[in-house]
Amino acid sequence: MDKVNLAEKLSGFSDYFNPRIAGELNGQHIKLVKFKGEFVWHHHDNEDELFYVVKGSFDMHMRDKIVTINEGEFIIMPRGVEHKPVANEEVEVMLFEPASTLNTGNVINEKTRTNLESI
Amino acid sequence: MDKVNLAEKLSGFSDYFNPRIAGELNGQHIKLVKFKGEFVWHHHDNEDELFYVVKGSFDMHMRDKIVTINEGEFIIMPRGVEHKPVANEEVEVMLFEPASTLNTGNVINEKTRTNLESI
Repeated sequence: MDKVNLAEKLSGFSDYFNPRIAGELNGQHIKLVKFKGEFVWHHHDNEDELFYVVKGSFDMHMRDKIVTINEGEFIIMPRGVEHKPVANEEVEVMLFEPASTLNTGNVINEKTRTNLESI
Repeated sequence: MDKVNLAEKLSGFSDYFNPRIAGELNGQHIKLVKFKGEFVWHHHDNEDELFYVVKGSFDMHMRDKIVTINEGEFIIMPRGVEHKPVANEEVEVMLFEPASTLNTGNVINEKTRTNLESI
């Protein structure tokens, strides 16, 4: 029951596409992550995923469109929908998703992160 | 799969303690709400609740302490924990909580809101 300051937590790490756990509720995680560059195309079979931009902006690529998500905006990617975040500049993002969610979804590669750090 | 701009959604209403639904995922709701004044002491038997301040600040009263939540900060109120939000000035808040969550929890009074509007 302590509060969490997003900027403070985000200042504590600098690597990209490596989400940290900043909170847990109802079986869901609040994660904080920085993106820069291009992620991998993937989907989640069983999890819907919310991306909220804390600072900066990024492009959410879907197979049929690209949506630019700016500071103060969120997008929900429903389960099963292929997507790929691309950030031309560094962007700070808060994720809200089930604790079971793997960052690369159905894909396992060098970008896959497990045993996420809690901050 | 459209994005949601919080400021734009929040500009669309002006009443207090009347949450709107701005998104749904994994059985959870994203709600937007404005607080001004004092809410009612309550708890939720089965739901944890996250309060993220988009603009302004408010005091989260618990029985043993008061925590001031400022812009860019969140607090998670675990199920069973009594709480009461108090805002001296208008504050804009994003909530993450199960779709089943009633705003006044175990209390039914004139502040209780059901059949929330989706925006």
